[in-house]
Formats: sequence, C-alpha cells, structure tokens
Amino acid sequence: MTHTDGMALALQAAREALAAGEVPVGAALLQGDRVLAMYGNRRERDHDPTAHAELLALREGARALGDWRLRDCTLYVTLEPCPMCAGALVMSQLGLCVFAAPDPQKGCCGSVYDLPGDPALSGVTRWQPGPGREEAEELLREFFEGLRERGVSSEE
Amino acid sequence: MTHTDGMALALQAAREALAAGEVPVGAALLQGDRVLAMYGNRRERDHDPTAHAELLALREGARALGDWRLRDCTLYVTLEPCPMCAGALVMSQLGLCVFAAPDPQKGCCGSVYDLPGDPALSGVTRWQPGPGREEAEELLREFFEGLRERGVSSEE
Repeated sequence: MTHTDGMALALQAAREALAAGEVPVGAALLQGDRVLAMYGNRRERDHDPTAHAELLALREGARALGDWRLRDCTLYVTLEPCPMCAGALVMSQLGLCVFAAPDPQKGCCGSVYDLPGDPALSGVTRWQPGPGREEAEELLREFFEGLRERGVSSEE
Repeated sequence: MTHTDGMALALQAAREALAAGEVPVGAALLQGDRVLAMYGNRRERDHDPTAHAELLALREGARALGDWRLRDCTLYVTLEPCPMCAGALVMSQLGLCVFAAPDPQKGCCGSVYDLPGDPALSGVTRWQPGPGREEAEELLREFFEGLRERGVSSEE
C-alpha cells in the first residue's frame, strides 16, 4: 500500500466527518497492508474532547493487535496532529505518522512543536508530510465556510 | 471539596491501578463538589496506549456533562501529565489541573514542557502542584521495585 493509498482512507474518513457536521479530519492506522482502524473526528457527536480521529484510530488499532505498542504501524492523518494526538503518537511508540495538511496553529509534528522528534521525550515515532494536502485543506475550508454562513463562531 | 479531598480520590484510583498491575497513576475529574469521573491507568488491561487515567477521566466526565468543554472543571491527578494528557487538558479547555508528583522525564505541565501555559496553543487551562506527592511517589516506587524484583524491564 502506498502513502497515497493510505491517505485516501484518511481522506474518506474526513469526508464522512464533514458529512456528520464535525471538523473534517480523518485518520487510518495500517500495519503493512492491513488496515487496523479508520476514523473521522467525533468530538461533537460523542461530546468527547479526546475523540480526535488519530486518538480513535490508535486506540482501536492497538486493541485489534492486543498490544499498546504500535512500532511497526503507520498512521495516515489529514491534518498535522494537535498536542494531544502528537503526544499519543509518542506514548504508543508508533512507527510513522504521515499527515496531509500542516497546522500552523496547533500542529505538534513540526509546526508549533515537534513532540515526536524531541529526544527529551524518548520517542521513537517518525513523521513526514504526505500526499493529499490540497483535498484535506479544501474539506476544512468547506467546513469553516459553512460555519461562517450559519453565523457560528468557529472553534477548532 | 478541598484539593486534599480531590487528590484523595485520585490516589484511591492509583492504588486500584497498582493492585491491577498497572503503572499506578490515578485521576479524578470534579465540577465543584460533583465527582464526574475517577479512573486509574488501564493501559495494560485495555491494550490501549491512550488509556491513561487523565484521558479516561476527561472522556467520561465530558460525556456525563454532554459537552466536550470542561472549563469549570478540575482534574486531580497523582502524576504530572505526559504530552498526550497535557495536550488533552488544552483540547478540553479544562479549567484547572492539580497534580501530586512532578514527572521530570515526561511531564508537560512545567517539567519538560508547559503545554497548557503556552500562549501559542491558546489554552485556557491552569495547573498547579498539589497535595499527595509523597504517597503518589511511594506507589510508583512500589510498582517499579516490583518489576525489578521480577526481572521485568520497566517501560513507562
């Protein structure tokens, strides 16, 4: 499975989140070619501040494997992980995170911080920008424009 | 409810985690005097890298309130939150986090980073060291000594 294939799953989950009225971010966790989990953001539906796509995918994938250590897994996500999710990459010993769009406001894989890359946290996770940025950003734009049209103040 | 009362709940959850063979960290989420959630770490039992006490308490508490925003809530936790959990404090807009023992290795409320206090992340969460440090550290010591006696390499 190529990075483009992996990201296509994450983008599909992001589109489903958009359709459900959520901030459209999606994630897919793979071990080789095996898809362990695919999730869109569910924060509003679940009234759960931790229900970001990445955290949901890491949790379900680890349960599927029966091990919280995800060293040989790759997480595809449509937006650069926030501090919570970047911390979760570190805590799960994830192998690789590939993200589509950078997040200059809250991104913690190189934008605001590089939590996985900080030797002080003894992390093993590598990360890299990947394919799909244009579509990922278009989904976010569509969501926030919809909010503005309805006069709702945005809150990511 | 005083900080000592709140931390007593977190310490009780940490003791239960120790008895279950988990790294003994506990957390309690309160809204005024109302206890919204009380959790010990469940990482090994649930094979879930995100099943830290803090994350579990934030998740259950938010669902109980029907709102992911926890601005008027206080989280008591026996160990300074890791990057993932400190990020979750920020993402949940938690009011206050009180922790018992600092964590010089992974703590992100002042030790390695101060994620809640960083204006770049636009967080609103305050944090402070609180009561219970001695007992919290004693529980951790007991756990890691037990691992060493059994010849298991520690992995926090």
